[in-house]
Amino acid sequence: MQLTADPRSARQWTIKSSSRHRVALVPTMGALHEGHLSLVRRAKELADEVAVSIFVNPTQFAPQEDLARYPRPIEDDLAALHREGVSMVYSPPAEAIYPPGFSTYINPPTVAEPLEGMIRPGHFRGVCTIVLKLFQAIPASVAVFGQKDYQQSLVVSAMARDLDVPITIEVAPTIRDPDGLAMSSRNRYLSDEQRNRSLCLSRALHSCKTLFDAKERSSAVLESAMFAILRPGEPDGVDEVDYVVVVDRHTLLPIAQTHSDTVALIAARVGSTRLIDNMILRT
Amino acid sequence: MQLTADPRSARQWTIKSSSRHRVALVPTMGALHEGHLSLVRRAKELADEVAVSIFVNPTQFAPQEDLARYPRPIEDDLAALHREGVSMVYSPPAEAIYPPGFSTYINPPTVAEPLEGMIRPGHFRGVCTIVLKLFQAIPASVAVFGQKDYQQSLVVSAMARDLDVPITIEVAPTIRDPDGLAMSSRNRYLSDEQRNRSLCLSRALHSCKTLFDAKERSSAVLESAMFAILRPGEPDGVDEVDYVVVVDRHTLLPIAQTHSDTVALIAARVGSTRLIDNMILRT
Repeated sequence: MQLTADPRSARQWTIKSSSRHRVALVPTMGALHEGHLSLVRRAKELADEVAVSIFVNPTQFAPQEDLARYPRPIEDDLAALHREGVSMVYSPPAEAIYPPGFSTYINPPTVAEPLEGMIRPGHFRGVCTIVLKLFQAIPASVAVFGQKDYQQSLVVSAMARDLDVPITIEVAPTIRDPDGLAMSSRNRYLSDEQRNRSLCLSRALHSCKTLFDAKERSSAVLESAMFAILRPGEPDGVDEVDYVVVVDRHTLLPIAQTHSDTVALIAARVGSTRLIDNMILRT
Repeated sequence: MQLTADPRSARQWTIKSSSRHRVALVPTMGALHEGHLSLVRRAKELADEVAVSIFVNPTQFAPQEDLARYPRPIEDDLAALHREGVSMVYSPPAEAIYPPGFSTYINPPTVAEPLEGMIRPGHFRGVCTIVLKLFQAIPASVAVFGQKDYQQSLVVSAMARDLDVPITIEVAPTIRDPDGLAMSSRNRYLSDEQRNRSLCLSRALHSCKTLFDAKERSSAVLESAMFAILRPGEPDGVDEVDYVVVVDRHTLLPIAQTHSDTVALIAARVGSTRLIDNMILRT
Protein backbone atom coordinates (compact mmCIF):
# COMPACT_ATOMS: atom_id res chain seq x y z
CA MET A 1 0.00 0.00 0.00
CA GLN A 2 1.46 3.34 -1.11
CA LEU A 3 1.23 6.26 1.28
CA THR A 4 1.73 9.83 0.12
CA ALA A 5 1.28 13.30 1.55
CA ASP A 6 1.87 15.11 -1.73
CA PRO A 7 -0.81 15.88 -4.36
CA ARG A 8 1.70 15.49 -7.20
CA SER A 9 2.73 11.99 -6.23
CA ALA A 10 -0.91 11.05 -5.56
CA ARG A 11 -1.64 12.20 -9.09
CA GLN A 12 1.32 10.40 -10.59
CA TRP A 13 0.24 7.19 -8.89
CA THR A 14 -3.33 7.61 -10.16
CA ILE A 15 -2.31 8.35 -13.73
CA LYS A 16 0.08 5.40 -13.80
CA SER A 17 -2.53 3.06 -12.30
CA SER A 18 -5.27 4.37 -14.60
CA SER A 19 -3.24 3.41 -17.65
CA ARG A 20 -3.65 -0.25 -16.66
CA HIS A 21 -6.70 -0.35 -14.39
CA ARG A 22 -9.85 1.37 -13.28
CA VAL A 23 -9.20 3.42 -10.13
CA ALA A 24 -11.78 4.35 -7.49
CA LEU A 25 -11.37 7.03 -4.83
CA VAL A 26 -12.89 6.99 -1.36
CA PRO A 27 -12.48 10.42 0.29
CA THR A 28 -12.53 10.27 4.11
CA MET A 29 -11.64 12.34 7.15
CA GLY A 30 -10.10 9.24 8.77
CA ALA A 31 -11.29 7.81 12.11
CA LEU A 32 -12.45 4.94 9.96
CA HIS A 33 -15.29 2.63 10.96
CA GLU A 34 -17.22 -0.14 9.21
CA GLY A 35 -19.16 2.49 7.27
CA HIS A 36 -15.97 3.74 5.61
CA LEU A 37 -14.77 0.19 5.03
CA SER A 38 -18.05 -0.60 3.28
CA LEU A 39 -17.30 2.32 0.93
CA VAL A 40 -13.89 0.81 0.25
CA ARG A 41 -15.52 -2.56 -0.50
CA ARG A 42 -18.01 -0.88 -2.84
CA ALA A 43 -15.07 0.89 -4.51
CA LYS A 44 -13.37 -2.49 -5.03
CA GLU A 45 -16.49 -3.74 -6.79
CA LEU A 46 -16.38 -0.74 -9.12
CA ALA A 47 -12.66 -0.60 -9.86
CA ASP A 48 -9.43 -2.60 -9.89
CA GLU A 49 -7.54 -0.37 -7.49
CA VAL A 50 -8.77 1.78 -4.63
CA ALA A 51 -7.25 5.03 -3.41
CA VAL A 52 -8.37 6.47 -0.07
CA SER A 53 -7.77 10.02 1.06
CA ILE A 54 -7.56 10.85 4.76
CA PHE A 55 -7.81 14.56 5.51
CA VAL A 56 -9.63 16.33 8.32
CA ASN A 57 -10.60 19.36 6.28
CA PRO A 58 -10.50 22.51 8.42
CA THR A 59 -12.51 24.64 5.95
CA GLN A 60 -15.66 22.56 6.41
CA PHE A 61 -15.72 23.16 10.17
CA ALA A 62 -17.10 26.38 11.64
CA PRO A 63 -15.03 28.01 14.42
CA GLN A 64 -17.29 26.63 17.18
CA GLU A 65 -17.35 23.11 15.73
CA ASP A 66 -15.33 20.03 16.65
CA LEU A 67 -12.26 20.36 14.40
CA ALA A 68 -9.78 20.25 17.30
CA ARG A 69 -11.29 17.21 18.98
CA TYR A 70 -12.10 15.34 15.77
CA PRO A 71 -10.42 11.91 16.16
CA ARG A 72 -7.23 11.26 14.16
CA PRO A 73 -6.19 7.61 14.78
CA ILE A 74 -3.96 7.49 11.68
CA GLU A 75 -2.11 4.26 12.57
CA ASP A 76 -5.36 2.33 13.08
CA ASP A 77 -6.75 3.82 9.87
CA LEU A 78 -3.75 2.76 7.80
CA ALA A 79 -3.84 -0.76 9.27
CA ALA A 80 -7.54 -1.09 8.41
CA LEU A 81 -7.02 0.15 4.85
CA HIS A 82 -4.09 -2.22 4.41
CA ARG A 83 -6.31 -5.12 5.51
CA GLU A 84 -8.90 -4.04 2.93
CA GLY A 85 -6.36 -4.20 0.12
CA VAL A 86 -6.33 -0.47 -0.59
CA SER A 87 -3.57 0.44 -3.08
CA MET A 88 -2.84 4.05 -2.17
CA VAL A 89 -3.56 6.38 0.72
CA TYR A 90 -3.28 10.15 0.26
CA SER A 91 -2.94 11.85 3.61
CA PRO A 92 -1.71 15.41 3.13
CA PRO A 93 -0.89 17.84 5.95
CA ALA A 94 -3.19 20.87 6.19
CA GLU A 95 -0.35 23.19 5.09
CA ALA A 96 -0.05 21.31 1.79
CA ILE A 97 -3.77 21.73 1.08
CA TYR A 98 -4.14 25.30 2.35
CA PRO A 99 -0.73 26.97 2.00
CA PRO A 100 -0.28 30.66 2.85
CA GLY A 101 -2.13 32.78 0.29
CA PHE A 102 -4.69 30.07 -0.48
CA SER A 103 -7.88 31.92 -1.38
CA THR A 104 -9.87 30.11 -4.11
CA TYR A 105 -13.05 28.36 -3.04
CA ILE A 106 -15.89 26.54 -4.72
CA ASN A 107 -19.22 28.29 -4.37
CA PRO A 108 -21.45 25.25 -3.96
CA PRO A 109 -24.53 24.43 -6.06
CA THR A 110 -28.08 25.36 -5.04
CA VAL A 111 -28.76 22.02 -3.37
CA ALA A 112 -26.22 23.06 -0.70
CA GLU A 113 -28.49 25.87 0.50
CA PRO A 114 -31.16 24.20 2.70
CA LEU A 115 -30.71 21.99 5.80
CA GLU A 116 -26.97 21.61 6.54
CA GLY A 117 -26.36 24.74 4.44
CA MET A 118 -28.59 26.76 6.79
CA ILE A 119 -27.29 25.25 10.03
CA ARG A 120 -23.63 25.11 9.01
CA PRO A 121 -22.91 28.17 6.83
CA GLY A 122 -19.71 27.66 4.85
CA HIS A 123 -19.68 23.90 5.44
CA PHE A 124 -20.37 22.90 1.85
CA ARG A 125 -18.05 25.57 0.51
CA GLY A 126 -15.31 23.76 2.44
CA VAL A 127 -16.55 20.34 1.32
CA CYS A 128 -16.73 21.30 -2.36
CA THR A 129 -13.32 22.93 -2.27
CA ILE A 130 -11.55 19.95 -0.70
CA VAL A 131 -13.40 17.43 -2.87
CA LEU A 132 -12.53 19.31 -6.04
CA LYS A 133 -8.88 19.42 -4.92
CA LEU A 134 -8.95 15.68 -4.18
CA PHE A 135 -10.47 15.09 -7.62
CA GLN A 136 -7.57 16.99 -9.21
CA ALA A 137 -4.94 15.11 -7.20
CA ILE A 138 -6.62 11.71 -7.68
CA PRO A 139 -8.36 11.72 -11.08
CA ALA A 140 -10.07 8.36 -10.53
CA SER A 141 -12.88 6.97 -12.69
CA VAL A 142 -15.31 6.85 -9.78
CA ALA A 143 -15.51 8.29 -6.26
CA VAL A 144 -17.58 6.64 -3.54
CA PHE A 145 -19.45 8.68 -0.92
CA GLY A 146 -21.73 7.50 1.88
CA GLN A 147 -25.48 8.00 1.86
CA LYS A 148 -25.17 8.86 5.58
CA ASP A 149 -24.07 12.36 4.42
CA TYR A 150 -27.02 12.51 2.07
CA GLN A 151 -26.98 16.21 1.23
CA GLN A 152 -23.20 16.05 0.73
CA SER A 153 -23.65 13.33 -1.89
CA LEU A 154 -26.11 15.56 -3.79
CA VAL A 155 -23.83 18.59 -3.48
CA VAL A 156 -20.76 16.72 -4.70
CA SER A 157 -22.69 15.16 -7.59
CA ALA A 158 -24.04 18.55 -8.70
CA MET A 159 -20.60 20.14 -8.39
CA ALA A 160 -18.96 17.40 -10.46
CA ARG A 161 -21.66 17.72 -13.13
CA ASP A 162 -21.56 21.55 -13.20
CA LEU A 163 -17.76 21.75 -13.39
CA ASP A 164 -17.35 18.93 -15.96
CA VAL A 165 -15.30 16.88 -13.51
CA PRO A 166 -14.95 13.53 -15.28
CA ILE A 167 -15.46 11.36 -12.18
CA THR A 168 -18.60 9.30 -11.58
CA ILE A 169 -20.07 9.84 -8.13
CA GLU A 170 -21.28 6.64 -6.49
CA VAL A 171 -23.36 6.76 -3.31
CA ALA A 172 -23.18 3.70 -1.06
CA PRO A 173 -25.70 2.73 1.67
CA THR A 174 -25.46 3.83 5.28
CA ILE A 175 -24.02 1.17 7.59
CA ARG A 176 -25.66 0.83 11.01
CA ASP A 177 -24.69 -0.73 14.31
CA PRO A 178 -26.95 -3.66 15.33
CA ASP A 179 -28.98 -1.25 17.48
CA GLY A 180 -29.74 0.90 14.41
CA LEU A 181 -27.39 3.84 15.03
CA ALA A 182 -25.86 5.05 11.76
CA MET A 183 -22.08 4.65 11.95
CA SER A 184 -20.19 7.91 12.36
CA SER A 185 -16.74 8.89 13.54
CA ARG A 186 -18.55 11.24 15.93
CA ASN A 187 -20.35 8.34 17.69
CA ARG A 188 -17.23 7.83 19.79
CA TYR A 189 -17.97 11.14 21.53
CA LEU A 190 -21.17 9.62 23.01
CA SER A 191 -21.45 8.32 26.59
CA ASP A 192 -23.51 5.13 27.04
CA GLU A 193 -26.47 7.19 28.17
CA GLN A 194 -26.13 9.57 25.21
CA ARG A 195 -25.77 6.68 22.81
CA ASN A 196 -29.05 5.24 24.04
CA ARG A 197 -30.79 8.53 23.39
CA SER A 198 -29.14 8.75 19.94
CA LEU A 199 -31.15 5.73 18.84
CA CYS A 200 -34.14 8.09 18.55
CA LEU A 201 -32.86 9.14 15.12
CA SER A 202 -32.98 5.74 13.45
CA ARG A 203 -36.17 4.85 15.32
CA ALA A 204 -37.81 8.01 14.03
CA LEU A 205 -36.73 7.26 10.46
CA HIS A 206 -37.95 3.67 10.65
CA SER A 207 -41.26 4.83 12.02
CA CYS A 208 -41.52 7.34 9.17
CA LYS A 209 -40.82 4.55 6.69
CA THR A 210 -43.47 2.34 8.29
CA LEU A 211 -46.07 5.11 8.02
CA PHE A 212 -45.03 5.82 4.43
CA ASP A 213 -45.32 2.12 3.55
CA ALA A 214 -48.82 2.20 5.10
CA LYS A 215 -49.65 4.90 2.52
CA GLU A 216 -49.30 7.99 4.70
CA ARG A 217 -48.38 10.71 2.17
CA SER A 218 -48.54 13.96 4.15
CA SER A 219 -45.05 15.32 4.82
CA ALA A 220 -46.38 17.21 7.85
CA VAL A 221 -47.78 14.01 9.38
CA LEU A 222 -44.55 12.11 8.74
CA GLU A 223 -42.43 14.93 10.18
CA SER A 224 -44.64 15.18 13.28
CA ALA A 225 -44.38 11.45 13.83
CA MET A 226 -40.57 11.65 13.73
CA PHE A 227 -40.50 14.71 15.98
CA ALA A 228 -42.61 12.85 18.55
CA ILE A 229 -39.97 10.10 18.67
CA LEU A 230 -37.00 12.48 18.84
CA ARG A 231 -38.57 14.12 21.97
CA PRO A 232 -36.10 17.04 22.08
CA GLY A 233 -35.30 18.12 25.65
CA GLU A 234 -36.99 15.09 27.24
CA PRO A 235 -34.90 12.75 29.43
CA ASP A 236 -35.15 9.92 26.87
CA GLY A 237 -34.97 12.16 23.79
CA VAL A 238 -32.29 14.08 21.92
CA ASP A 239 -31.15 17.40 23.37
CA GLU A 240 -31.96 19.50 20.33
CA VAL A 241 -33.36 19.02 16.83
CA ASP A 242 -31.69 21.01 14.03
CA TYR A 243 -34.17 19.73 11.48
CA VAL A 244 -36.52 16.83 10.86
CA VAL A 245 -37.94 16.95 7.34
CA VAL A 246 -39.47 14.99 4.53
CA VAL A 247 -38.38 16.60 1.25
CA ASP A 248 -37.81 16.01 -2.44
CA ARG A 249 -34.79 13.75 -2.62
CA HIS A 250 -33.16 15.57 -5.55
CA THR A 251 -33.70 19.21 -4.59
CA LEU A 252 -34.17 18.83 -0.80
CA LEU A 253 -37.01 21.33 -1.12
CA PRO A 254 -40.21 20.98 0.93
CA ILE A 255 -43.09 19.00 -0.52
CA ALA A 256 -46.62 18.83 0.85
CA GLN A 257 -47.24 15.28 -0.35
CA THR A 258 -44.56 12.61 -0.48
CA HIS A 259 -44.01 10.77 -3.73
CA SER A 260 -41.63 8.14 -5.01
CA ASP A 261 -38.65 10.52 -4.87
CA THR A 262 -38.69 11.57 -1.25
CA VAL A 263 -36.16 11.48 1.57
CA ALA A 264 -36.55 11.91 5.34
CA LEU A 265 -33.61 13.68 6.99
CA ILE A 266 -32.81 14.38 10.63
CA ALA A 267 -30.08 16.41 12.30
CA ALA A 268 -30.07 16.49 16.09
CA ARG A 269 -27.74 17.12 19.00
CA VAL A 270 -27.11 14.75 21.89
CA GLY A 271 -24.88 16.38 24.45
CA SER A 272 -22.27 18.26 22.44
CA THR A 273 -22.42 15.72 19.59
CA ARG A 274 -24.26 16.50 16.39
CA LEU A 275 -25.79 13.50 14.63
CA ILE A 276 -27.36 13.21 11.18
CA ASP A 277 -29.27 10.37 9.57
CA ASN A 278 -31.67 9.87 6.66
CA MET A 279 -33.85 7.38 4.87
CA ILE A 280 -35.10 7.37 1.31
CA LEU A 281 -38.84 6.79 1.01
CA ARG A 282 -39.66 4.69 -2.02
CA THR A 283 -42.98 3.27 -3.14
CA MET B 1 -8.34 19.62 -37.37
CA GLN B 2 -10.94 18.08 -35.05
CA LEU B 3 -13.92 20.21 -34.06
CA THR B 4 -16.13 19.30 -31.13
CA ALA B 5 -18.93 20.92 -29.17
CA ASP B 6 -19.01 18.30 -26.43
CA PRO B 7 -16.83 18.30 -23.29
CA ARG B 8 -16.66 14.50 -23.23
CA SER B 9 -15.28 14.20 -26.74
CA ALA B 10 -12.89 17.11 -26.10
CA ARG B 11 -11.66 15.16 -23.09
CA GLN B 12 -11.39 11.91 -24.98
CA TRP B 13 -9.34 13.61 -27.68
CA THR B 14 -7.06 15.19 -25.07
CA ILE B 15 -6.50 11.95 -23.15
CA LYS B 16 -5.79 10.03 -26.33
CA SER B 17 -3.39 12.72 -27.60
CA SER B 18 -1.70 13.05 -24.22
CA SER B 19 -0.78 9.37 -24.25
CA ARG B 20 1.52 10.07 -27.20
CA HIS B 21 2.25 13.79 -27.04
CA ARG B 22 2.34 16.90 -24.95
CA VAL B 23 -0.87 18.91 -25.41
CA ALA B 24 -1.28 22.66 -24.91
CA LEU B 25 -4.58 24.52 -24.55
CA VAL B 26 -5.30 28.07 -25.69
CA PRO B 27 -8.63 29.26 -24.26
CA THR B 28 -10.25 32.03 -26.33
CA MET B 29 -13.57 33.78 -26.84
CA GLY B 30 -13.03 33.64 -30.61
CA ALA B 31 -12.92 36.76 -32.82
CA LEU B 32 -9.30 35.76 -33.24
CA HIS B 33 -6.57 38.25 -34.12
CA GLU B 34 -2.80 38.09 -34.31
CA GLY B 35 -2.63 38.24 -30.51
CA HIS B 36 -4.51 34.96 -30.23
CA LEU B 37 -2.47 33.42 -33.02
CA SER B 38 0.71 34.36 -31.18
CA LEU B 39 -0.64 32.38 -28.19
CA VAL B 40 -1.19 29.41 -30.51
CA ARG B 41 2.37 29.73 -31.78
CA ARG B 42 3.70 29.88 -28.23
CA ALA B 43 1.60 26.80 -27.44
CA LYS B 44 3.19 24.97 -30.38
CA GLU B 45 6.62 25.75 -28.93
CA LEU B 46 5.56 24.24 -25.60
CA ALA B 47 3.72 21.15 -26.85
CA ASP B 48 3.29 18.75 -29.75
CA GLU B 49 -0.41 19.36 -30.26
CA VAL B 50 -2.52 22.45 -29.63
CA ALA B 51 -6.18 22.55 -28.62
CA VAL B 52 -8.05 25.85 -28.82
CA SER B 53 -11.36 26.54 -27.12
CA ILE B 54 -13.75 29.12 -28.53
CA PHE B 55 -16.50 30.14 -26.13
CA VAL B 56 -17.99 33.57 -25.50
CA ASN B 57 -18.60 32.99 -21.81
CA PRO B 58 -21.80 34.74 -20.68
CA THR B 59 -21.02 34.50 -16.94
CA GLN B 60 -18.03 36.84 -17.24
CA PHE B 61 -20.14 39.65 -18.74
CA ALA B 62 -22.25 41.91 -16.54
CA PRO B 63 -25.81 42.62 -17.77
CA GLN B 64 -24.87 46.05 -19.16
CA GLU B 65 -21.74 44.76 -20.91
CA ASP B 66 -21.16 43.80 -24.54
CA LEU B 67 -22.09 40.07 -24.54
CA ALA B 68 -24.72 40.44 -27.26
CA ARG B 69 -22.55 42.46 -29.64
CA TYR B 70 -19.33 40.55 -28.94
CA PRO B 71 -18.09 39.40 -32.39
CA ARG B 72 -18.51 35.71 -33.28
CA PRO B 73 -16.87 35.15 -36.69
CA ILE B 74 -16.64 31.37 -36.20
CA GLU B 75 -15.83 30.48 -39.84
CA ASP B 76 -12.93 32.93 -40.01
CA ASP B 77 -11.71 31.70 -36.63
CA LEU B 78 -11.70 28.05 -37.69
CA ALA B 79 -9.90 28.88 -40.93
CA ALA B 80 -7.21 30.79 -39.03
CA LEU B 81 -6.72 27.96 -36.52
CA HIS B 82 -6.52 25.43 -39.34
CA ARG B 83 -3.79 27.51 -40.99
CA GLU B 84 -1.88 27.53 -37.69
CA GLY B 85 -1.92 23.73 -37.52
CA VAL B 86 -4.17 23.51 -34.47
CA SER B 87 -5.21 19.88 -33.80
CA MET B 88 -8.52 20.32 -32.00
CA VAL B 89 -11.06 23.10 -31.50
CA TYR B 90 -13.60 22.88 -28.68
CA SER B 91 -16.51 25.20 -29.35
CA PRO B 92 -19.43 24.30 -27.10
CA PRO B 93 -22.85 25.95 -27.19
CA ALA B 94 -23.78 27.97 -24.07
CA GLU B 95 -26.46 25.40 -23.13
CA ALA B 96 -23.81 22.66 -22.92
CA ILE B 97 -21.70 24.74 -20.54
CA TYR B 98 -24.53 26.19 -18.45
CA PRO B 99 -27.44 23.74 -18.63
CA PRO B 100 -30.62 24.33 -16.62
CA GLY B 101 -29.86 23.94 -12.90
CA PHE B 102 -26.20 24.91 -13.29
CA SER B 103 -25.27 26.60 -10.02
CA THR B 104 -21.65 25.86 -9.00
CA TYR B 105 -19.15 28.69 -9.35
CA ILE B 106 -15.53 29.29 -8.49
CA ASN B 107 -15.04 31.97 -5.88
CA PRO B 108 -11.87 33.57 -7.26
CA PRO B 109 -8.63 34.09 -5.35
CA THR B 110 -7.74 37.34 -3.57
CA VAL B 111 -5.82 38.74 -6.53
CA ALA B 112 -9.19 39.00 -8.34
CA GLU B 113 -10.39 41.66 -5.88
CA PRO B 114 -8.75 44.95 -6.99
CA LEU B 115 -8.90 46.69 -10.41
CA GLU B 116 -11.08 44.62 -12.79
CA GLY B 117 -12.63 42.95 -9.73
CA MET B 118 -13.83 46.35 -8.47
CA ILE B 119 -15.01 47.66 -11.85
CA ARG B 120 -16.51 44.40 -13.10
CA PRO B 121 -18.02 42.57 -10.10
CA GLY B 122 -18.57 38.91 -10.90
CA HIS B 123 -16.26 39.02 -13.93
CA PHE B 124 -13.53 36.82 -12.46
CA ARG B 125 -16.06 34.48 -10.92
CA GLY B 126 -17.23 33.82 -14.48
CA VAL B 127 -13.66 33.60 -15.79
CA CYS B 128 -12.53 31.15 -13.10
CA THR B 129 -15.61 28.99 -13.54
CA ILE B 130 -15.28 28.66 -17.31
CA VAL B 131 -11.51 28.18 -17.15
CA LEU B 132 -11.83 25.44 -14.55
CA LYS B 133 -14.46 23.75 -16.72
CA LEU B 134 -12.20 24.03 -19.77
CA PHE B 135 -9.36 22.55 -17.72
CA GLN B 136 -11.55 19.54 -16.86
CA ALA B 137 -12.66 19.05 -20.46
CA ILE B 138 -9.16 19.57 -21.89
CA PRO B 139 -6.63 18.32 -19.31
CA ALA B 140 -3.62 19.62 -21.23
CA SER B 141 -0.09 19.89 -19.84
CA VAL B 142 0.02 23.63 -20.31
CA ALA B 143 -2.47 26.43 -21.01
CA VAL B 144 -1.42 29.69 -22.64
CA PHE B 145 -2.98 33.03 -21.66
CA GLY B 146 -2.16 36.52 -22.93
CA GLN B 147 -0.40 39.12 -20.84
CA LYS B 148 -2.87 41.64 -22.28
CA ASP B 149 -5.37 40.36 -19.68
CA TYR B 150 -2.73 40.69 -16.99
CA GLN B 151 -4.92 40.36 -13.91
CA GLN B 152 -6.70 37.40 -15.50
CA SER B 153 -3.39 35.60 -15.89
CA LEU B 154 -2.67 36.10 -12.18
CA VAL B 155 -6.17 35.01 -11.20
CA VAL B 156 -6.05 31.86 -13.33
CA SER B 157 -2.55 30.98 -12.06
CA ALA B 158 -3.63 31.38 -8.42
CA MET B 159 -6.79 29.36 -9.02
CA ALA B 160 -4.89 26.52 -10.68
CA ARG B 161 -2.37 26.48 -7.82
CA ASP B 162 -5.03 26.67 -5.07
CA LEU B 163 -7.21 23.94 -6.57
CA ASP B 164 -4.31 21.57 -7.45
CA VAL B 165 -5.18 21.77 -11.15
CA PRO B 166 -2.25 19.97 -12.81
CA ILE B 167 -1.89 22.39 -15.73
CA THR B 168 1.02 24.80 -16.09
CA ILE B 169 -0.11 28.36 -16.81
CA GLU B 170 2.01 30.11 -19.41
CA VAL B 171 1.65 33.85 -20.02
CA ALA B 172 2.62 35.10 -23.49
CA PRO B 173 3.45 38.71 -24.42
CA THR B 174 0.90 41.25 -25.62
CA ILE B 175 0.87 41.70 -29.39
CA ARG B 176 0.46 45.26 -30.67
CA ASP B 177 -0.51 46.85 -33.93
CA PRO B 178 2.30 48.92 -35.52
CA ASP B 179 0.80 52.06 -33.98
CA GLY B 180 1.14 50.52 -30.49
CA LEU B 181 -2.49 49.59 -29.78
CA ALA B 182 -2.68 46.30 -27.93
CA MET B 183 -4.61 43.81 -30.04
CA SER B 184 -8.10 43.06 -28.77
CA SER B 185 -11.26 41.62 -30.26
CA ARG B 186 -12.94 44.77 -29.01
CA ASN B 187 -10.75 47.05 -31.17
CA ARG B 188 -13.11 46.35 -34.07
CA TYR B 189 -15.77 48.39 -32.24
CA LEU B 190 -13.60 51.55 -32.64
CA SER B 191 -14.20 54.21 -35.30
CA ASP B 192 -11.04 55.70 -36.88
CA GLU B 193 -11.31 58.72 -34.62
CA GLN B 194 -11.79 56.55 -31.53
CA ARG B 195 -8.91 54.33 -32.54
CA ASN B 196 -6.62 57.37 -32.69
CA ARG B 197 -7.62 58.36 -29.18
CA SER B 198 -7.13 54.74 -28.00
CA LEU B 199 -3.41 55.09 -28.68
CA CYS B 200 -3.22 57.13 -25.45
CA LEU B 201 -3.10 53.85 -23.50
CA SER B 202 0.07 52.45 -25.04
CA ARG B 203 1.63 55.93 -25.18
CA ALA B 204 0.97 56.37 -21.46
CA LEU B 205 2.50 52.99 -20.66
CA HIS B 206 5.58 53.67 -22.77
CA SER B 207 6.01 57.03 -21.13
CA CYS B 208 5.73 55.36 -17.72
CA LYS B 209 8.39 52.84 -18.76
CA THR B 210 10.67 55.65 -19.96
CA LEU B 211 10.35 57.47 -16.64
CA PHE B 212 10.91 54.22 -14.75
CA ASP B 213 14.03 53.46 -16.81
CA ALA B 214 15.22 56.99 -15.95
CA LYS B 215 15.01 55.93 -12.27
CA GLU B 216 11.69 57.51 -11.35
CA ARG B 217 10.46 55.27 -8.51
CA SER B 218 7.40 57.09 -7.12
CA SER B 219 4.20 55.28 -8.08
CA ALA B 220 2.27 58.53 -7.70
CA VAL B 221 4.54 60.35 -10.15
CA LEU B 222 4.34 57.51 -12.67
CA GLU B 223 0.55 57.32 -12.36
CA SER B 224 0.20 61.10 -12.78
CA ALA B 225 2.36 61.02 -15.87
CA MET B 226 0.14 58.35 -17.42
CA PHE B 227 -3.03 60.17 -16.42
CA ALA B 228 -1.75 63.32 -18.13
CA ILE B 229 -1.39 61.38 -21.38
CA LEU B 230 -4.79 59.65 -21.13
CA ARG B 231 -6.46 63.11 -20.85
CA PRO B 232 -9.90 61.75 -19.94
CA GLY B 233 -12.74 63.85 -21.39
CA GLU B 234 -10.41 65.91 -23.61
CA PRO B 235 -10.99 65.84 -27.40
CA ASP B 236 -7.73 63.95 -27.99
CA GLY B 237 -7.98 61.78 -24.86
CA VAL B 238 -9.93 58.76 -23.74
CA ASP B 239 -13.52 59.30 -22.61
CA GLU B 240 -13.14 57.83 -19.16
CA VAL B 241 -10.41 56.24 -17.03
CA ASP B 242 -11.44 53.23 -14.94
CA TYR B 243 -8.00 52.97 -13.38
CA VAL B 244 -4.40 53.91 -14.07
CA VAL B 245 -2.08 52.37 -11.50
CA VAL B 246 1.43 51.23 -10.74
CA VAL B 247 1.20 48.25 -8.38
CA ASP B 248 2.97 45.14 -7.15
CA ARG B 249 2.94 42.76 -10.08
CA HIS B 250 2.09 39.65 -8.00
CA THR B 251 -0.55 41.02 -5.62
CA LEU B 252 -1.76 44.05 -7.64
CA LEU B 253 -1.74 45.96 -4.37
CA PRO B 254 -0.65 49.62 -4.22
CA ILE B 255 3.00 50.39 -3.56
CA ALA B 256 4.47 53.79 -2.78
CA GLN B 257 7.81 53.08 -4.43
CA THR B 258 8.20 50.91 -7.51
CA HIS B 259 10.64 48.02 -7.38
CA SER B 260 11.70 45.25 -9.73
CA ASP B 261 8.33 43.49 -9.44
CA THR B 262 5.98 46.23 -10.58
CA VAL B 263 3.34 46.55 -13.26
CA ALA B 264 1.53 49.55 -14.72
CA LEU B 265 -2.09 48.87 -15.67
CA ILE B 266 -4.69 50.99 -17.43
CA ALA B 267 -8.39 50.49 -18.08
CA ALA B 268 -10.18 53.23 -20.01
CA ARG B 269 -13.25 53.79 -22.13
CA VAL B 270 -13.30 55.23 -25.64
CA GLY B 271 -16.85 55.66 -26.82
CA SER B 272 -18.70 52.58 -25.61
CA THR B 273 -15.56 50.44 -25.89
CA ARG B 274 -13.58 49.45 -22.82
CA LEU B 275 -9.86 48.99 -23.35
CA ILE B 276 -7.19 47.55 -21.06
CA ASP B 277 -3.43 47.46 -21.38
CA ASN B 278 -0.42 46.98 -19.12
CA MET B 279 3.34 46.98 -18.98
CA ILE B 280 5.68 45.26 -16.56
CA LEU B 281 8.33 47.58 -15.10
CA ARG B 282 11.61 45.76 -14.65
CA THR B 283 14.96 47.08 -13.57
